[in-house]
Amino acid sequence: MQQESPKGQAIITAALLVIGDEILSGRTKDKNIGYTAEYLTNIGVDLREVRVVADIEEEIVAAVNALRSKYNYLFTTGGIGPTHDDITADCVAKAFGVALPYHPEAVDILKKRFNGADLNEARMRMTRIPEGGTLVYNKVSGAPGFRIGNVFVMAGIPVVMQAMLDEIAPTLQTGKKMLSESVRADAREGDIGGPLGEVAKAFPDVTIGSYPFIDDKGPNTSIVVRAREEERLSAAVAAVREMLAGVQVSLQK
Amino acid sequence: MQQESPKGQAIITAALLVIGDEILSGRTKDKNIGYTAEYLTNIGVDLREVRVVADIEEEIVAAVNALRSKYNYLFTTGGIGPTHDDITADCVAKAFGVALPYHPEAVDILKKRFNGADLNEARMRMTRIPEGGTLVYNKVSGAPGFRIGNVFVMAGIPVVMQAMLDEIAPTLQTGKKMLSESVRADAREGDIGGPLGEVAKAFPDVTIGSYPFIDDKGPNTSIVVRAREEERLSAAVAAVREMLAGVQVSLQK
Repeated sequence: MQQESPKGQAIITAALLVIGDEILSGRTKDKNIGYTAEYLTNIGVDLREVRVVADIEEEIVAAVNALRSKYNYLFTTGGIGPTHDDITADCVAKAFGVALPYHPEAVDILKKRFNGADLNEARMRMTRIPEGGTLVYNKVSGAPGFRIGNVFVMAGIPVVMQAMLDEIAPTLQTGKKMLSESVRADAREGDIGGPLGEVAKAFPDVTIGSYPFIDDKGPNTSIVVRAREEERLSAAVAAVREMLAGVQVSLQK
Repeated sequence: MQQESPKGQAIITAALLVIGDEILSGRTKDKNIGYTAEYLTNIGVDLREVRVVADIEEEIVAAVNALRSKYNYLFTTGGIGPTHDDITADCVAKAFGVALPYHPEAVDILKKRFNGADLNEARMRMTRIPEGGTLVYNKVSGAPGFRIGNVFVMAGIPVVMQAMLDEIAPTLQTGKKMLSESVRADAREGDIGGPLGEVAKAFPDVTIGSYPFIDDKGPNTSIVVRAREEERLSAAVAAVREMLAGVQVSLQK
């Protein structure tokens, strides 16, 4: 589902699927969502949805199929290690309806890391790649991730996931980057809600977000203006600043 | 969809829906997923799925309806402030097919916080509650969340969300708590993958997870055993320890 921006520049969308009981139980606090979100934004890919599911085959297969058909790319993290609870490759193969053979190059990679008996059946699990898939190299711990269709399967350990994302990024089609500028309101969110809404209405092609925060001067608001066109961003930021000046005057009355 | 555990004790399931462009752009790093996951696990509610969606009405409505019909409870965070991008109440009302009137008690609460002109149209937005909904009090910043049906709508700011969760928790039906014990393997994950899988097969009613980590002694593995019955947990942990002792002997040969 490729979308076109107003000036014909492609918008590239993505989803992230985080796989693992340990995230849903709270034992492990996810660090991959925030990292991936920021990374993709910076290269011109719009992360549109994230899901976290348990190590349950039917849930993973359903989520993979729902997300890969809705967005340009799907990234997954977790579940590609050597133990019985690592079932991501099996689930992705099932979602695509393909076999899951040992991948010769993946086997070679692990043979270089583990000699003889160390390359046991458990570690060999990590060389099973869905038919038609290509490897995503892993400079950190060796065992590769993979790409099949528009789905990229990455490790769950943040340092490994990050190395894999570096391998994947140059291969992605990217869109016009979303530009962003933050304006400090020096006003409480509720004081500017009305006029800010008017500015947002006047710039339907610009996304304007309002985020309250508290610092040592008290409650305040950060207004984040986002647009793909530099001139539209500047115009909307100017309108926000003008609105804020008016609010400041009325608050001082 | 209420599920029964082997001994007839109800298992209570939940999903979390995180709403907000700022999470998907990476500007704000979510802290509510990990907190809610740990909190619910501790009170005997199984968090089964998390989704993060943007401030887009159709996406929020679709996610609310998908998740509230699949799990006992749905919790949402974000999008209940006073600005134009706060559309969660509107979307939940739409998902339930009900109106979104000003809630008299919510109005009273905000009247006590804001006098006269300060209770403007923007702040009044925060008193709109879907018809049939009840308030979730907010001791931190005043503006309430709400419950309608099996859906709990909370703020996105972590300190406010956490206060709301404290209000909600005593009203929840809870199941038998999932018990958990971690065993330090003192072995690499790939060395124990085979025999650990055998233990997992022997305890189909117990969840056994394997999580690699690295400390100053090198690569290691944490094995997390989870069960609702104390005796099943103990039996599975004993089997894991016995397995590990065997692996240690074979590795030293």
